[in-house]
Amino acid sequence: MNAPRTARFLSFEGGEAAGKSTQIRLLSERLRSTGLDVVELREPGGTPIGEKIRHLLKHDPDGHGMSPESELLLMNASRAELVRKVIRPALEAGRWVVSDRFFDSTTAYQGHGRGLDPLQVRAVIDIAVGPTRPDLTLYLDVDPATARQRLARRRGDQAVPDRFDEEKDAFFSRVRAGFESILATEPERIVRVDAGGDVATVADAVWRQLASRSWV
Amino acid sequence: MNAPRTARFLSFEGGEAAGKSTQIRLLSERLRSTGLDVVELREPGGTPIGEKIRHLLKHDPDGHGMSPESELLLMNASRAELVRKVIRPALEAGRWVVSDRFFDSTTAYQGHGRGLDPLQVRAVIDIAVGPTRPDLTLYLDVDPATARQRLARRRGDQAVPDRFDEEKDAFFSRVRAGFESILATEPERIVRVDAGGDVATVADAVWRQLASRSWV
Repeated sequence: MNAPRTARFLSFEGGEAAGKSTQIRLLSERLRSTGLDVVELREPGGTPIGEKIRHLLKHDPDGHGMSPESELLLMNASRAELVRKVIRPALEAGRWVVSDRFFDSTTAYQGHGRGLDPLQVRAVIDIAVGPTRPDLTLYLDVDPATARQRLARRRGDQAVPDRFDEEKDAFFSRVRAGFESILATEPERIVRVDAGGDVATVADAVWRQLASRSWV
Repeated sequence: MNAPRTARFLSFEGGEAAGKSTQIRLLSERLRSTGLDVVELREPGGTPIGEKIRHLLKHDPDGHGMSPESELLLMNASRAELVRKVIRPALEAGRWVVSDRFFDSTTAYQGHGRGLDPLQVRAVIDIAVGPTRPDLTLYLDVDPATARQRLARRRGDQAVPDRFDEEKDAFFSRVRAGFESILATEPERIVRVDAGGDVATVADAVWRQLASRSWV
């Protein structure tokens, strides 16, 4: 029998069409195949209140034209629930947590993207998460041209565009710069993964990040 | 013809059954009878997004057991919308604004009542309101015994209790102490009005507060 492995909290970040949900599914399956108990999450959402907030933020017609400040506060209201009702209990029970987006998205989208004061953004995040932070964040990086191609293909597949999909290129440039800034500031916690290749190649790169830390 | 009077932003605060909604209705009618344009608001709510947040906070079964942090952030998401979509445009158009609760309720209920860090509560309020603050806040003060009697009568009148109505006495003592602390800290902005008397007496006391400032 092996000693139990420490439960880890992983988050995936990246722009639209970076392949986060596919990679999260593949990673979770592979972690489970080694005997780990894995909780997959997505933000905003993941709790009853959080899913209603997700709807308000992404799909409700009343959400169009929402102030950036409301968006910031709603995102983090969802996060505060998720941390306390799901993430902390899971980690305490020895389960791994893999989240599709976490607080870096707020820094990049609401901070850099919408131009809110970085100190105010950080204060709100601190309230929402307290001491609960990802052990490792995988930033799936694709160049904008590849992302645009993937998005166009996805549209052809009838995925329903949400409010964020409709934002302009300038916004996404600011978001991308936001992620670059986080990568430069916290290299121990967040790592860049080249997500321009095929699914299996990216999945291997993700796995190597965990293996190199002797977590798997 | 008189010179136009400066538009004022007034908020009413107080515990349950202090008579806020009655007094707001009477004051707004009297202000209108002097030719003023008055917008009446209530928190949380007052915008399409805000009303959905109000429902989540007060009536949705999923809201039971919500974390204090989520409650704080949801309240202020509603407030951020209200400030930007309703209060600022109204004041800029020369209309008076009378609000049933504003940020002092957050300080008292989420801060003192739920025990959240006062600095964090203030940071969130600052994001939600920016420079938009009431010109005058009327704290309708009733002793707890009178409030309890009024609440019992209201229950008999079939008012539907919401989540906050069901909180315990200890919580309301902390809330009351919170309002006392605000009264002590910002005596220029918030005034105590004895709300233990009959409706007309309280309405007169409210009016005198405005008259003494030569606002009416």
